[in-house]
Amino acid sequence: MQIIWGRNPVYEALRAGRGVSRILLAEGVKPAGVLAEIIDVARSRGIAVERVERYRLDSVARTPKHQGIVAEVAEFHYVSLPDILSKANERGEYPLILILDSLQDPQNFGSLLRTAEAVGAHGVVIPKRRAVGVTPAVVKASAGAVEHLLVAQVTNVPRAIDEVKEAGIWVAGIDVDGRQAFDEVDWNVPVALVVGAEGKGIGRLVKEKCDFVVRIPMRGHVSSLNAAVAGSIVLYYAWRSRSNTRGSAR
Amino acid sequence: MQIIWGRNPVYEALRAGRGVSRILLAEGVKPAGVLAEIIDVARSRGIAVERVERYRLDSVARTPKHQGIVAEVAEFHYVSLPDILSKANERGEYPLILILDSLQDPQNFGSLLRTAEAVGAHGVVIPKRRAVGVTPAVVKASAGAVEHLLVAQVTNVPRAIDEVKEAGIWVAGIDVDGRQAFDEVDWNVPVALVVGAEGKGIGRLVKEKCDFVVRIPMRGHVSSLNAAVAGSIVLYYAWRSRSNTRGSAR
Repeated sequence: MQIIWGRNPVYEALRAGRGVSRILLAEGVKPAGVLAEIIDVARSRGIAVERVERYRLDSVARTPKHQGIVAEVAEFHYVSLPDILSKANERGEYPLILILDSLQDPQNFGSLLRTAEAVGAHGVVIPKRRAVGVTPAVVKASAGAVEHLLVAQVTNVPRAIDEVKEAGIWVAGIDVDGRQAFDEVDWNVPVALVVGAEGKGIGRLVKEKCDFVVRIPMRGHVSSLNAAVAGSIVLYYAWRSRSNTRGSAR
Repeated sequence: MQIIWGRNPVYEALRAGRGVSRILLAEGVKPAGVLAEIIDVARSRGIAVERVERYRLDSVARTPKHQGIVAEVAEFHYVSLPDILSKANERGEYPLILILDSLQDPQNFGSLLRTAEAVGAHGVVIPKRRAVGVTPAVVKASAGAVEHLLVAQVTNVPRAIDEVKEAGIWVAGIDVDGRQAFDEVDWNVPVALVVGAEGKGIGRLVKEKCDFVVRIPMRGHVSSLNAAVAGSIVLYYAWRSRSNTRGSAR
């Protein structure tokens, strides 16, 4: 059992079919908009919706940022790397995979998951250790998008990259000293995009494993972008350049 | 007098020439990398650098996220809208301005400022009320990029939009129901981009003032992106499509 909080996270958990055992709603919150839809769906599935005092939600969620709603849900279900590869295959599309090399910030991780879901990425690979997992704060920052995404936790990112390459997928890193600009590369190929940690970027070993490294050109004084922003810009460019060339299907 | 904290913020404040009166450094922190450069610059300008215990920094910064460094600096200097218009003129470029319609989250605001600086935006317009200003947390989230940016605080965003339009600049909003995709629009014109608040998007009145509204296409289940990500994607596309057509100079 796990706790998630926030309106979009609970709504998307219900929509995606994650097991929801109980919903707690703050007293005095009007059942309008997304909340009304949540209550409807919960009722139709026989999920208990209890009204509780707000301070109890603060304590269950361990944050006051719950927007008046908390749900008890089944543990987040991680998949394996082959599951992600199969998904691209099922859809008849070139794989578009996101590999996160030790992101630390839940808000960055969540924002990036939200973008990955928006562009139809087939899955996201994250390291098991020294990185943030799919915590309630990450679910919230993703606006619930993670419920619709395949996420694989791997013990070793370089080894996962080898597996990805063996499946015939190009591995592209983003780094300040990348040789090509991100928008001078042909993304209409099977590709896995590697985004590094805040501040440090991608690790040396991981960078060496990449087939190519792209940079995001900048003309200001500061030398890098926010990690979620950087990953999102390249994900969007990759997806849009595929669909604009009608290359999204093989 | 104002407090800023974090390595990049203090470094960029020094580089940008903001008045720095004193720097506090946590005891035991090694003076390597950016810190070494900060100490060098401070010494050459006669700025006092004091070693203090970490708990004192926590209390001065009012957060433990200060990375071992806090600086006392001059108040952030806001400019006027005409200052921003002049800057584009001086550079001989089509204006590229960012207008933020009531962003609430310091991390989003900071990330977006970081992107705006990276693409060479001529300035950023924010509302005085019901929005986050350039607080220390925003400076940190911008990695100090805000030190190199012109930021104007306006009492009334719709009125500021009128002024921008009178200066011959196209005003483009980003919204889920925008008529055109962001990458089907010609950005090689003088333009101000309007990004709305988290969750709510841009206000009705502001949207009506926009010359055109673009959407960011999405193919997933979730209906919007993180506000900083959305703004950054369009800013990048606008800048890159200008420079790729050699249109960055008039």
